[in-house]
Amino acid sequence: MSTLTQMLNTHPARTGDAAAELVACIEACAECLQTCTSCADACLSEDMVSELTTCIRTNLDCADICAATASILTRQTGSNPEVVRAALEACRAACAACAEECEKHADMHDHCRVCAEACRRCEKACADLLALS
Amino acid sequence: MSTLTQMLNTHPARTGDAAAELVACIEACAECLQTCTSCADACLSEDMVSELTTCIRTNLDCADICAATASILTRQTGSNPEVVRAALEACRAACAACAEECEKHADMHDHCRVCAEACRRCEKACADLLALS
Amino acid sequence: MSTLTQMLNTHPARTGDAAAELVACIEACAECLQTCTSCADACLSEDMVSELTTCIRTNLDCADICAATASILTRQTGSNPEVVRAALEACRAACAACAEECEKHADMHDHCRVCAEACRRCEKACADLLALS
Amino acid sequence: MSTLTQMLNTHPARTGDAAAELVACIEACAECLQTCTSCADACLSEDMVSELTTCIRTNLDCADICAATASILTRQTGSNPEVVRAALEACRAACAACAEECEKHADMHDHCRVCAEACRRCEKACADLLALS
Repeated sequence: MSTLTQMLNTHPARTGDAAAELVACIEACAECLQTCTSCADACLSEDMVSELTTCIRTNLDCADICAATASILTRQTGSNPEVVRAALEACRAACAACAEECEKHADMHDHCRVCAEACRRCEKACADLLALS
Repeated sequence: MSTLTQMLNTHPARTGDAAAELVACIEACAECLQTCTSCADACLSEDMVSELTTCIRTNLDCADICAATASILTRQTGSNPEVVRAALEACRAACAACAEECEKHADMHDHCRVCAEACRRCEKACADLLALS
Repeated sequence: MSTLTQMLNTHPARTGDAAAELVACIEACAECLQTCTSCADACLSEDMVSELTTCIRTNLDCADICAATASILTRQTGSNPEVVRAALEACRAACAACAEECEKHADMHDHCRVCAEACRRCEKACADLLALS
Repeated sequence: MSTLTQMLNTHPARTGDAAAELVACIEACAECLQTCTSCADACLSEDMVSELTTCIRTNLDCADICAATASILTRQTGSNPEVVRAALEACRAACAACAEECEKHADMHDHCRVCAEACRRCEKACADLLALS
């Protein structure tokens, strides 16, 4: 059992075990934050950095939203469904934009390929959680 | 002229001076981030902290979204209007939720009153910028 | 192979595979960020929240530093050893302080026990990486 | 009176008005966070971006530490002087590194000049607060 699952399952306000979709979405946000931060830095090291500036910016935007969304989802307030929903919509949009941009460079740069896959996973995890709410 | 305005006006991709609504929204997000972080801590110091836990959570959610939105708005990518719009919608929702919660305690706690005012300013600044986009 | 390892190993500036200590430290920071965010929220849900306010604050401090340190470590600049070292020192101090506080409540609250363990892992991972630098 | 000062002066755990050095340091961190985020983006828009990659990285590192330090300073815990001190040391180091890098480009890029000045102000504010502790 992951540390995150242990934390959510020992939360005093839990009602049963944490929903698998919630755990999956927090973990996807955390992974995507890490991947986008790394992809931005890898792009900065490429000789063709001047062709990757849009990629770096969408990476940074995506990392910022993923970080905020992971924290908001981890706080089990339950009392602010509009905020959670709006954060998930923003995160889904940022992941889709970043995936689309990274996919353009995936053939040439492996870091963009790995990052695009993480963005697509996070986009889907946000969509799955939105479908439940 | 504020440091932020100087930065935006020396950005190589600018077209004329930065829009007043953009500057106002970034500054409102930065103020609201600071105010919500402080209000959460002030609530933790109140004797009646057990009645302020929802306020602390909405403060933390609002601070997280304001931080992400300020960074995204500061990056003048221009190429991802959906992401900017979704971040502004999430920020507006978080500010509205936090303002509403803080207003309940504004008569009793001055920090909640000051924080609610900052949240309402940021909510309005997000709405003003959304109206332009 | 973790997504993070894949990212670091496809970075154009790598020299061989990423050091195990670097990967371990980034992953420990990410885990500790998540755990501290969750522990703060769990503490807010406890009936005895008024006795846990120091724990909530050290959780939030630790989460903030872990987030910054994970990002800094992920950027393989190599050119700013003083900044990396100072961030690791701050992260180690915050993890130690948070572990010490959470351990006081570990018998009574399982989330504090799980969180203390994550803080100790991150404290050690920072120390291990500092020993290499 | 700034909103931050109002918040700190309505904090229930205050003992007299907030120290001028504390207010100045939080405000300097917030300004430097904003300036470094903007300078990284401005550098990405320069034709000579390939010569500015170190500047972009030190900007991003500095922004991350400034954000964490501002939040930690805003939480008036008072109970974790080692963590506050270590965060201030890391922030001072990151601001010094970023100022030094931006100063190399200050003649050519106004955004680097404005950013270097903000970094130096924040470096000094951290040093002033460390001198008090």
